[in-house]
Amino acid sequence: MAKVTILGAGGWAIGIAVLLDNNGHDVTMWSAVSTEVKSLKRHRENKISLPGIVISEKIKVTGDLDESLQNDPDIIVLAVASKFIRSTSKLLNGKVKDGQIILNVAKGIEDGTLMFLTDVIEEEVPGSDVCVLSGPTHAEEVGKLMPTTCVVGAKSEKTAKYIQDVFASQYFRTYVSPDMVGIELCGALKNVIALAAGMADGLGYGDNTKAALITRGIKEITRLGLAMGANVSTFAGLSGIGDLIVTCASMHSRNRRAGILIGQGYTLDEAVREVNMVVEGAVSAKAALELANKYKIEMPIIEEVNKILFEDLPVENAVQDLMLRQNIAEHPELVWNK
Amino acid sequence: MAKVTILGAGGWAIGIAVLLDNNGHDVTMWSAVSTEVKSLKRHRENKISLPGIVISEKIKVTGDLDESLQNDPDIIVLAVASKFIRSTSKLLNGKVKDGQIILNVAKGIEDGTLMFLTDVIEEEVPGSDVCVLSGPTHAEEVGKLMPTTCVVGAKSEKTAKYIQDVFASQYFRTYVSPDMVGIELCGALKNVIALAAGMADGLGYGDNTKAALITRGIKEITRLGLAMGANVSTFAGLSGIGDLIVTCASMHSRNRRAGILIGQGYTLDEAVREVNMVVEGAVSAKAALELANKYKIEMPIIEEVNKILFEDLPVENAVQDLMLRQNIAEHPELVWNK
Repeated sequence: MAKVTILGAGGWAIGIAVLLDNNGHDVTMWSAVSTEVKSLKRHRENKISLPGIVISEKIKVTGDLDESLQNDPDIIVLAVASKFIRSTSKLLNGKVKDGQIILNVAKGIEDGTLMFLTDVIEEEVPGSDVCVLSGPTHAEEVGKLMPTTCVVGAKSEKTAKYIQDVFASQYFRTYVSPDMVGIELCGALKNVIALAAGMADGLGYGDNTKAALITRGIKEITRLGLAMGANVSTFAGLSGIGDLIVTCASMHSRNRRAGILIGQGYTLDEAVREVNMVVEGAVSAKAALELANKYKIEMPIIEEVNKILFEDLPVENAVQDLMLRQNIAEHPELVWNK
Repeated sequence: MAKVTILGAGGWAIGIAVLLDNNGHDVTMWSAVSTEVKSLKRHRENKISLPGIVISEKIKVTGDLDESLQNDPDIIVLAVASKFIRSTSKLLNGKVKDGQIILNVAKGIEDGTLMFLTDVIEEEVPGSDVCVLSGPTHAEEVGKLMPTTCVVGAKSEKTAKYIQDVFASQYFRTYVSPDMVGIELCGALKNVIALAAGMADGLGYGDNTKAALITRGIKEITRLGLAMGANVSTFAGLSGIGDLIVTCASMHSRNRRAGILIGQGYTLDEAVREVNMVVEGAVSAKAALELANKYKIEMPIIEEVNKILFEDLPVENAVQDLMLRQNIAEHPELVWNK
């Protein structure tokens, strides 16, 4: 049995709490949002983020960070929204032991610094053992105990396998990987492709177009990842194409929903207002373009999404730009015999 | 302008005919099925295979093979169902010039011989220049001019680029690749994964489960492909994950529809009767297992699908078998630093 403290009480935090509680672990949840704490204590449910999923009475809920850490947790799961990763990590500074395992389950790149979230955590909590969990894991479905797979990235195989053992269950299959850079890059950039896939849906296009955007989208993310030191396999794996598939297929994804509206003619601002939630893909689109420029990688889909979002390029024109690019090889690295 | 003779008059044959005619080429269609020829001549439409898509008067239609070849076509497109590839190729023997370009657009492995379809064609028409076109290309959507991408595999770059130029249009983007083995293997085995994805749908599972099957499915197909001499990039490309995504997402796929029924408790025979069409995935499942054994590759999803289809394993048990396999690394080839 492991002692696990989950920071955050949104949908994914609750999905993980239910999973780990079912696995027999000692689970504590903390949130900085007092209404979430109250609601979880009273109703055992976050009716806004994950309605219908009730957490057991065994799971402790607190709004007091010190209280959530007082049992010296084996694992701290950082399950707040990506924009709160730095501020929440700051709160942990000086409060956890050397080598404390901190598992990041948020996805994104920090605005401005272009840092991966695990690097942000490590900067704020020096000496901690930061790892990451990612993959096609809609909280709604994990909460309903539907078969789900994920990958755990860590610096050491020992930590990765430990997390793997703690999380593995008959409905949650975990794999391990040393490629944290690849896992985090995929998690951050998938929302840009989800926006593009949504736009194609909004334009009334079908499965062919969406599959093209997903496949060529992961191809350009792979090119960037290789330049950043990631491994090519990761992009074809659960945190890469796997997560991209669920994000682009599902109405759970607000990025895709925003994309659909933009495809139907809404501006980015109008779409964000309508979806009424953060559209991370728009933030990530900018970050991705900065990374593409920094590493001198050609990323035509990312470029077109940026033009649509921030330069008023009509969506139809972007599609034509992409379709009429120079004819090329699918994988230029492959060699012809003749 | 190229002279193109398309053998076959099913959905994909018509999608290609519309595309090439729009591109300004001289298109002739041939079918061995006299009712198809009559219907195409009279209504300019195959009301059964691709209702609603009308071909222009410029496209010649004939039931006479010699007539279809009399203008010495630059390209023969073989667009018959996979089980008719050998018999149709036989008809071409002695009727075409040395170096005749024959483009295979069917997907599958020949039952019994386990040969790829391009190899079957080459065996029957020695001296021909056989190539292959694949990818996420539902005929329904190509017929409606929706943005679509594909990959052309050939032995020589020259032939691949020629096909690329002939097919490329503002709604049909073509890439080239030398990896014919990878392209054909993906096309043949995707239907097995589509069956599995359908079964998950039939069991009431969600996007997480389907993404897991697709991602881990292409991973095991990749392992087999590498053993057979294919390149890893192909599996992450349009003919690999791209085609798998559309096949698993779409109700156009009869393999997926059959899978859904099996997930709901139908036997294979009952599902085939209900879908009322060939379910290639069932044939391919057997072939895939034979290849896995031949090349000594572990293919857990392929194995479970075979047990469900041919050994009456209940679908639920197969899911549990897969979820509770030994915990492993996502990409065992990646090295840990510590």
